[in-house]
Amino acid sequence: MTTSVATLKNLAAQLRIDSVRSTSEAGSGHPTSCLSAADIVSALFFAEMHFDPKNPQNPDNDRFVLSKGHAAPILYAAWAEAGLFPREELLKLRRIDSDLEGHPTPRLSFVDVATGSLGQGICAAIGTALNARRIGSEYRTYVLLGDGEMAEGSVWEAANAAVYHKLDNLCSIIDVNALGQSQHTQFGHNMDEIAARWKAFEWHTIVVDGHDIPALLNALNEARATKGRPTMILARTLKGKGLAAIEGKDGWHGKALKKGEEADKAIAELEKQKVDAAPKPEISGPRSKSRPETAADYSKIPNPAYKKGELVATREAWGVALAAVGAADTRVVALDADVKNSTFSDKFEKVATGRFYENFIAEQVMAGAAMGLAARGAIPFPSTFACFLTRASDFIRMGAISFANVKFTGSHAGVSIGEDGPSQMALEDLSMMRSVHGCAVLYPCDAVSTERLVAEMAKHKGMAYMRTSRPKTPVIYGPDETFPIGGSKVVRQGANDKAAVIGAGVTLFEALKAYDTLKAQGIDIRVIDAYSLQPVDAKTMTEAGRATGGALITVEDHYSAGGIGDAVSEAVASAGFTVRRLAVAEIPRSGQPDELLERYGISARHIVDAVKQVIARRPTHV
Amino acid sequence: MTTSVATLKNLAAQLRIDSVRSTSEAGSGHPTSCLSAADIVSALFFAEMHFDPKNPQNPDNDRFVLSKGHAAPILYAAWAEAGLFPREELLKLRRIDSDLEGHPTPRLSFVDVATGSLGQGICAAIGTALNARRIGSEYRTYVLLGDGEMAEGSVWEAANAAVYHKLDNLCSIIDVNALGQSQHTQFGHNMDEIAARWKAFEWHTIVVDGHDIPALLNALNEARATKGRPTMILARTLKGKGLAAIEGKDGWHGKALKKGEEADKAIAELEKQKVDAAPKPEISGPRSKSRPETAADYSKIPNPAYKKGELVATREAWGVALAAVGAADTRVVALDADVKNSTFSDKFEKVATGRFYENFIAEQVMAGAAMGLAARGAIPFPSTFACFLTRASDFIRMGAISFANVKFTGSHAGVSIGEDGPSQMALEDLSMMRSVHGCAVLYPCDAVSTERLVAEMAKHKGMAYMRTSRPKTPVIYGPDETFPIGGSKVVRQGANDKAAVIGAGVTLFEALKAYDTLKAQGIDIRVIDAYSLQPVDAKTMTEAGRATGGALITVEDHYSAGGIGDAVSEAVASAGFTVRRLAVAEIPRSGQPDELLERYGISARHIVDAVKQVIARRPTHV
Repeated sequence: MTTSVATLKNLAAQLRIDSVRSTSEAGSGHPTSCLSAADIVSALFFAEMHFDPKNPQNPDNDRFVLSKGHAAPILYAAWAEAGLFPREELLKLRRIDSDLEGHPTPRLSFVDVATGSLGQGICAAIGTALNARRIGSEYRTYVLLGDGEMAEGSVWEAANAAVYHKLDNLCSIIDVNALGQSQHTQFGHNMDEIAARWKAFEWHTIVVDGHDIPALLNALNEARATKGRPTMILARTLKGKGLAAIEGKDGWHGKALKKGEEADKAIAELEKQKVDAAPKPEISGPRSKSRPETAADYSKIPNPAYKKGELVATREAWGVALAAVGAADTRVVALDADVKNSTFSDKFEKVATGRFYENFIAEQVMAGAAMGLAARGAIPFPSTFACFLTRASDFIRMGAISFANVKFTGSHAGVSIGEDGPSQMALEDLSMMRSVHGCAVLYPCDAVSTERLVAEMAKHKGMAYMRTSRPKTPVIYGPDETFPIGGSKVVRQGANDKAAVIGAGVTLFEALKAYDTLKAQGIDIRVIDAYSLQPVDAKTMTEAGRATGGALITVEDHYSAGGIGDAVSEAVASAGFTVRRLAVAEIPRSGQPDELLERYGISARHIVDAVKQVIARRPTHV
Repeated sequence: MTTSVATLKNLAAQLRIDSVRSTSEAGSGHPTSCLSAADIVSALFFAEMHFDPKNPQNPDNDRFVLSKGHAAPILYAAWAEAGLFPREELLKLRRIDSDLEGHPTPRLSFVDVATGSLGQGICAAIGTALNARRIGSEYRTYVLLGDGEMAEGSVWEAANAAVYHKLDNLCSIIDVNALGQSQHTQFGHNMDEIAARWKAFEWHTIVVDGHDIPALLNALNEARATKGRPTMILARTLKGKGLAAIEGKDGWHGKALKKGEEADKAIAELEKQKVDAAPKPEISGPRSKSRPETAADYSKIPNPAYKKGELVATREAWGVALAAVGAADTRVVALDADVKNSTFSDKFEKVATGRFYENFIAEQVMAGAAMGLAARGAIPFPSTFACFLTRASDFIRMGAISFANVKFTGSHAGVSIGEDGPSQMALEDLSMMRSVHGCAVLYPCDAVSTERLVAEMAKHKGMAYMRTSRPKTPVIYGPDETFPIGGSKVVRQGANDKAAVIGAGVTLFEALKAYDTLKAQGIDIRVIDAYSLQPVDAKTMTEAGRATGGALITVEDHYSAGGIGDAVSEAVASAGFTVRRLAVAEIPRSGQPDELLERYGISARHIVDAVKQVIARRPTHV
C-alpha cells in the first residue's frame, strides 16, 4: 500500500462530494447509499486493488463488482478519480446522452455485469473469481453489497458456492448501514447476528467500522492472507455518513439533495472533512500476467455421426455436442445445478477438466456465475431443466442488460416429459428467452440439428438459449446439413400445399405424422421446422403464407403467450398473414407423453383437424 | 401421543412398501427419496399431527407441506393409511386418470401448494403458519425438506422470514440423506456444518437420527415446546433406507424398481421389518377451533373520489384502493419486499393491522408465503417493482399449478420510470403473467380504473396480476364507470375511423395525443384502453378490426414477446386480422420518461407514423 491514510480520507470526502453533486444535478439517485460506502470504496480503489486505471478490461486487473448497484454515482466517481474520464462527466449522470446510467451497465468499460437487482453482484463475483483460475491470473475479485441484499436468497447461494469452490481470491464487503429503502433492515446494526450467519457459512468473517480507514485496510490485508476460503468484511456504517443532518436517518433512501442551497451546504460540510493536503494516490498495476486464451478452432468439430432414423434424445445429443465444442474452444465452460445426469452436461464434465462447475440445486448462482465468467472471456453453458431456469429469470433479465455472452440450455421441456407432471414441464421458457434482446432462441428436433446448433450458439455473440427434449426422437437430417441461427427447414413441401404447419422439437414429428395422414386423404401440406425462434425465419414463413393462401398453423409444446405462434405471427403480420396457434392451454397433469400431447391439443390428430378447419374457413374479410 | 412406537415402525415399513409398489407399478418415480423419509412421515402423520383424516380442508387441521415434492408417493401412502382413500388407488400413481401425480398438486384435497420445484414448500409453510395467527387457530405447520434443497436461496429467505415473524407454530424437518440427484450434496452427512447454519439463522435446531422413531418423537415434542421461534429438525437418514442393496448408494435417484422380481424382493425385505402386531394408530383431531372468516362486503367500498383531469399515479391509486378493499374484505392481506413506500402498499399497512407482512428484499419467500396464505383462505396481495417479480418467476409458475388465489402487483413498469435505468424497468412482466393459466392480467391507465380493478382482482377466483405505473397520469374515467375483467374501453371512436390504436397504461395517453394530432390532419382513429390483457376483449378488438379494415395498432411499454400486441394478435387472428406492434425493441437506457417513450418507439409521434403507414400499406394479399 503506497497511498497514505490521509490521502484515502481526502479521497473518500471527494467521492462523497461527487456523489452528492452528480445526484443533485440529475435531480434523482441514491446519495446516502454512496455516502455510507465512501471509505470502503476509497480504501479499495486507491490502496487495495491492483489495476490499470486506463484499461479497465486488462485481463489481469482486480475486479470490482458493485452489487448494491444503486450506489452507482460513487463507482463513477471512483473511476473519474482514478483518471479514466474527466470529473465533469459525472454531472451527466442519468442523462440519455451519457452511459453513466442510474444503475451500472456494461455500456461502461469498467462494469462487468449490470447491477441494480439486489443480490446478483455477489453471484457474478463468483464467476469472475472462478475465471481467474481459468486463465491462470492472480487477479482478485472484490464485491460490495448493501446489508439489505442479505435478505435475497441468491446471496446465500453465492455463500455456499464460494466456499465449495474455495475462492480465496474473492473478498466481499457488506456496507452495513442498517437502513433499507422503506425501513430498517432485518438485523439493523446487530453485527453479531450478521457475523454469525457468515461464519456458519464458513467464510472468513471480519467485522470493522466501515468509516475507519486503517481498520478497513487491515481487514483487506487479512482477507488477502486468508487461504482456502473467501473472506467477508462486515463494515458497520451510517447511511448518509458525513452529513450530520442526514446521517443514520430513515426516510432518505433514493433522495437527491436539492440542487442549489441544499446541495451546496452539504458539499461545503463534506469539503471540511478533507484533512491536510496529502499526495495523490498511487494505483498499483495488475498482480500477474495471465495465460493468453487458446484460439478456438471450430473446424476440429467432426460432422454429426448419427444415422437417419436413429432414435436419440436432443438432450443427449446436446451433451455430446457440448463436449465436442468444448474441445474445439477452451473458453467454453459448463455449469450445472445437480441435474447433469439428466441434461447430459456430465458428458462435458468427463472430458473438460477444470471447466465444469457444480452449483448443486442453486439456479441463481449458476446463472450469476455464468455472467461473471462471460464478462471475463469465458463462454459459459449453464444448464438445468428448462422449467427451473425460471428460478433464474431475474438473472437472465439482468444478463440481457449486461449483454452477457451466456448460453443457457433448458432440458425436459413441455408436456412431452410425461409422468413427472406439470412442476417439471417448462411451458413458458421460450417466452422468457424471447424477451431477451439479441438472444438466439433455438429448439432443435433431432440429434443432427442439435449438434450443429450447439456450435452455432457458442459462436453467436451474446446470449443464446437452447431448448432440449426428454423423449428420444428420430434423426431426420443428414450429416452435411447446416443450421444457421435465424434459419428454418422446410421438411415437406409440394406444388399444391393447402396449409403450412410450423413445428419445432417434439411437435415437428406430430406435424410429420399429420402430413402422412393428410397425404393419404389427398391433402398436401408444407411442414416447417422452426428450429430458430429468435430470430425467426420470416422469409420462409411468409413464403409459406403466400404458397398456402395464408393457411399457417403453428404447433408447440409450450403455452401460447410468447411462444412459437407469437413469434411466427409477428414475423408474418406485415405481409397480412394470421396464424392459427396450437399450444398448451391449461395446466397439464401427469401421464404418458403421447397421452399428454393428445390431451393438450398438440398431437398429429389435432394438427389434422386444424388443417381441415383452416382450409374450410378462410378469413372472413378476405 | 397415543400411537405406540411399534405401530409407528410398522407404519413406516408399510409406507416404504407402498412407495416401492406404486412407483414400480408406474414404472417411474423416486422410491429411494421416500424410503429415507418414511420414519419421519410415520411419526408426523400417526403420532404428532392433529387433523381430521376425513376432511383435509378442516381449517384447524395441522398442515403438512412436502417441500421435497418428488417424494409424493409416500405422501399419498400416508393419506391412504390415514383412511382418506383406499390403498388400491396408490397403484394409479402417475396415470393420466388419477390425481396422484408425479409431484403433488392441489388437485388433491390434502395438498395446499404444488411442490416439485425445490425450496418452495418451506416458503409456502411460512404462509400457512402466518395464516394460523390470522384466523386465531392453534394449528401447527410441518414442512419436510430434502437436504439438497438447502442449496436453494429461497430456503434461506424462508429461514429469515420465519424468525422475523417468530413462527413457533412452524416445525421444519430436513431429511438429510446426503445424496442429491446427480451426486452427493454439498455437505453430505456433516450434520455439524448443517446445524451451524440453522443455528446462526436463529432457529431452534435439533439433530436426530431420522430412522429412530423415539428420537423423532422427542424432537417433535421439543419443537412444540419451543416458543418465540421456529424449530428445525435435522434428521440424518439413508436414501433407500430399508433395502440393503440400495441404502445410502449413489445412482438410485429417481429410479423405480422393476415391477416383478426386483420389486417383489424389495417388498419382501420391507415386510420383514414389521415388528409384532401393534394396534392401529389413533390420529388426534384439530387442536382448536378458529374464528370464522368475516363475510366480505364489497358494497362498502365507496365510488372513486377522483376528478377527471386530476394527476394521480396508478401505483398510488392502487395503494388507496388496496386499503379500501382490505376494509371491505378482511381476508385480504398484503406482502411487501421493502418497497412499500414506492408501491404504496404502506397505505394498507397503516390501516390493516396484523394483515401486512414485511419480507425485506426477498421476493421468493414473499410469493411463496402468499401461496401458503391463499391456500388457507386469505386473499394475499404481494407487491414489488414489476421487474423484481421476475425474481419469483418460478414461484409464480408453481402458483399457477397450485391454482393459487394470489393477487400480484408490479409497480414501476416499463421505460416510463425514467432515470433509474433498465434494471428497474419491467418489460417482460405481462408476458410472464399471461403464461399463468387463468390469471387475470390487468393494466389500468388512470386512478379510477385502478381503483375499480383492485376490487375486481380481489373478487376474481384464481391468480391475478396488476401492472401499475410510476408517472402521474390524468384521470379520464368518471366515478360510475365499471371495469369488468375481460373488458376494454373504447375511449375515442367515430363513424370514419381509419385505424384503431390499442394501448394500456402510459401508452393510452400517447394514443390520445396521436388522436389529437391526426384529428387536426383530418384523420380519425379509434382509441381503445386494453386494461384487461387476460382475458383480452376479443369482441371489441375484432369490431375495431372490422370498422377500420383491419388497421389495428398496439402500443405498449413492454417488449413485444408475449405482450399486448401478442395478446391482441391472438384474439383477432381467427377473424383474419393482423396487428402492427409498437413495443420496446432494445435494451433501454436511463433518461427522462418522455425521452425514453420517444427513443424506444412508443410515443405519440411513432403512433402517428404507424397509423399513416398502416393506412397507406394495406396487407398485400387482400
